[in-house]
Amino acid sequence: MFDPEEVRKDFPILSRKINGRPLVYFDNAASTQKPIQVINVIVEFYRNHYANIHRGLHTLSQEASEMYEKAHETLAKFINAYSWEEVVFCNNTTDAMNLVAYAWGLKNLREGDEIVATIMDHHSTMLPWRKIAKMKGAVVKYINVTPQGYLDYDSLNTIITPKTKVIVFPIASNVLGTINNVEELVKRAREVGSIVVADGAQSVPHTLTDVRKLGVDFLGFSGHKMLGPTGSGVLWGRRDILEEMDLFKVGGDTIRDVTVDDTVWLDLPWRFEAGTPNIEAGIALGVAAEYLMKLGMENVREHEKHLVAYTLKRLSEEFPDDIRVYGPRDPGDKTGVVSFNIIGLNHHTVAKALDLFGIAVRSGMHCAHPLHYSLKITYLEKPPSSLPEKPEDRLILYGSVRASYYVYNTFEEVDYFIETLGKIVNLKEALKKEKPEAPCTGS
Amino acid sequence: MFDPEEVRKDFPILSRKINGRPLVYFDNAASTQKPIQVINVIVEFYRNHYANIHRGLHTLSQEASEMYEKAHETLAKFINAYSWEEVVFCNNTTDAMNLVAYAWGLKNLREGDEIVATIMDHHSTMLPWRKIAKMKGAVVKYINVTPQGYLDYDSLNTIITPKTKVIVFPIASNVLGTINNVEELVKRAREVGSIVVADGAQSVPHTLTDVRKLGVDFLGFSGHKMLGPTGSGVLWGRRDILEEMDLFKVGGDTIRDVTVDDTVWLDLPWRFEAGTPNIEAGIALGVAAEYLMKLGMENVREHEKHLVAYTLKRLSEEFPDDIRVYGPRDPGDKTGVVSFNIIGLNHHTVAKALDLFGIAVRSGMHCAHPLHYSLKITYLEKPPSSLPEKPEDRLILYGSVRASYYVYNTFEEVDYFIETLGKIVNLKEALKKEKPEAPCTGS
Repeated sequence: MFDPEEVRKDFPILSRKINGRPLVYFDNAASTQKPIQVINVIVEFYRNHYANIHRGLHTLSQEASEMYEKAHETLAKFINAYSWEEVVFCNNTTDAMNLVAYAWGLKNLREGDEIVATIMDHHSTMLPWRKIAKMKGAVVKYINVTPQGYLDYDSLNTIITPKTKVIVFPIASNVLGTINNVEELVKRAREVGSIVVADGAQSVPHTLTDVRKLGVDFLGFSGHKMLGPTGSGVLWGRRDILEEMDLFKVGGDTIRDVTVDDTVWLDLPWRFEAGTPNIEAGIALGVAAEYLMKLGMENVREHEKHLVAYTLKRLSEEFPDDIRVYGPRDPGDKTGVVSFNIIGLNHHTVAKALDLFGIAVRSGMHCAHPLHYSLKITYLEKPPSSLPEKPEDRLILYGSVRASYYVYNTFEEVDYFIETLGKIVNLKEALKKEKPEAPCTGS
Repeated sequence: MFDPEEVRKDFPILSRKINGRPLVYFDNAASTQKPIQVINVIVEFYRNHYANIHRGLHTLSQEASEMYEKAHETLAKFINAYSWEEVVFCNNTTDAMNLVAYAWGLKNLREGDEIVATIMDHHSTMLPWRKIAKMKGAVVKYINVTPQGYLDYDSLNTIITPKTKVIVFPIASNVLGTINNVEELVKRAREVGSIVVADGAQSVPHTLTDVRKLGVDFLGFSGHKMLGPTGSGVLWGRRDILEEMDLFKVGGDTIRDVTVDDTVWLDLPWRFEAGTPNIEAGIALGVAAEYLMKLGMENVREHEKHLVAYTLKRLSEEFPDDIRVYGPRDPGDKTGVVSFNIIGLNHHTVAKALDLFGIAVRSGMHCAHPLHYSLKITYLEKPPSSLPEKPEDRLILYGSVRASYYVYNTFEEVDYFIETLGKIVNLKEALKKEKPEAPCTGS
């Protein structure tokens, strides 16, 4: 098991003070901080090796190409892909999900086909399929979420049918932390001949991922949520499906040859990486993945599980009446995410108060609005009897505060967090007078 | 006028040795190097201010959001946009062009509509429209290029018709350097009610750009070709068209609210920046644009013009029979790009030989294959009588060597380049024995 105190030394930002207090960074489900190794490789790349890639014949281009290709190999190893050619670098999970929805969906979906998504989907997995479904006359159905925060597996018999062509879901919920039963979903998909698209944004950075065992057809995840830079992400796909799929974005670097009448596309993965790719981000994501493999993904998982178990225990013992926690109570069923509300105190007010103590959490609906509406996740003692008509009212009333952990978080930080929550609970009546902002908060 | 020797001090990579010689970086049309100011802001961002944006309520998220929004303002200023809200950050020009083709094209194109492109289009501007045209049953027509490297304006009367819905072209050719007559093309577009999509990848980094004067509806360009990091780029669009356009990629950060039945999109530009954006790249692109504005874009243009004028003069004087130069001979009509062939010596062989002397140029068809085929740009004394059937044969026979300049290039470097070309010309017979590779070379 790694020592988070040792890990912390690699993250320069963790010595920052926020409002005079040491930064406690609990916004990791939105994005993680970057170790010095990742920062340094960016500097080293631009100072000494930079050029555009795709093997221009000059030395710098060769060096940059090698670094970029090697990063694909590293990421392939990270998820145990069969080959680096199945690893398409993209911006983020949203990009990966749009790629599949457009490229696979536009070619293969027909009128009346059904797409099965889940109510706990992040917008990035839900909306692309809704868009393509609308274009093709297909129908999107949703697997519900139980009040305990699990997918309603009992409903699968009715929701998944021979019309189902796509099943899309998050491996782990970005709000509830729930780790879904991938095996069961894949089994059902195979029974009806559907493809399976998995959103790994909240699982790949936090658990050991093995695409050979997962059995899905596509897996998307974001580099910036696993110590990598912004603008990095991966779409992994089963080779045969990637090969038969249409292209998504086209242009420079997707082709072998173009005449006025014809186009010959490049091999995998390049045909899906249109234009000059984010070379820097790809290389640095490789370094991030190496860093995580060195820590050991099983250790990362264990560390977060312990932090979550400790948090859930203390919250339920110390604030049984004041704080409502969402999602599974068994730390074995969830990732390092704790979403909650202080009853009677707006989630945005709580987040702002925590920030005054140096604690960074996210508040809002975390790009999972349907989940919040479905489970009626609100700070109010009783949820409104119906969904308010105006979006701006919904954005104030519904939402949660989310603390999410990663490799550099410690039990001491959780202690400080719980202690600070205690102060906020005590100040509840005074804080209620604060008018909450309703910012656009995502991720 | 700025002093390139002073500018060079800001670019750490320029002190690198390549094969024992000082690096002469003439591959700027593919991508430019990064000044220390750009590298430093990336480091500073990750060391001290990093978080996901869209105004999470904690301090780091506020700081990151402000930096990212400010970068939009800087880029708006750089191209004299009416508002930063018209500035959509994307990966690169390819991304920008796909965005417009998908989002505008899928909504507005009808069967039989015509799209007018040019034979000198980079694949990134040509292929997205070919793809969308095919999906919608529209037709793509091409403006030809004269042997002198100009668009064939005489043909516009027949090519542009009332059926024309889109006119798409590069403001400057990435191969010939030709600066196209935007005013004329816009005038023709307005006569028939067509929109105008301009590829600014090779113009925005090299000339003063004023979208109010240009009169086009969309302008795309790449950050990494103007001192910014990879993964940075801009789509500028006319506000009214951006507002009426469908979305392209959807998901996190494009929405204000999502219910199971409905979606309310965010304002401009966010609705077009799906998922966690490349925050780092956006911020660093802002610093790159500031750097260029400080140099003065008129000065950048003048500097490159002088370098090109000097190069063209020396090439024509010293190698009248051995070197064939492509594109306009008047430096006033072209950007800082010189594409050429040593007659009888494969372009890839020439590029490799130059690299041995530390000179980085690009060889191949530069993602503009139709242009090379149309103008029969080849190292052979006489071009093949017809296009070879196999793409791999075409990739060997057609192509050019491209030297492209930027702010840190000097007359001394051009002298060394010309001198080295002289050596290569003298060694031609020996070098002919080298078997040229045909790499995938883009940009």
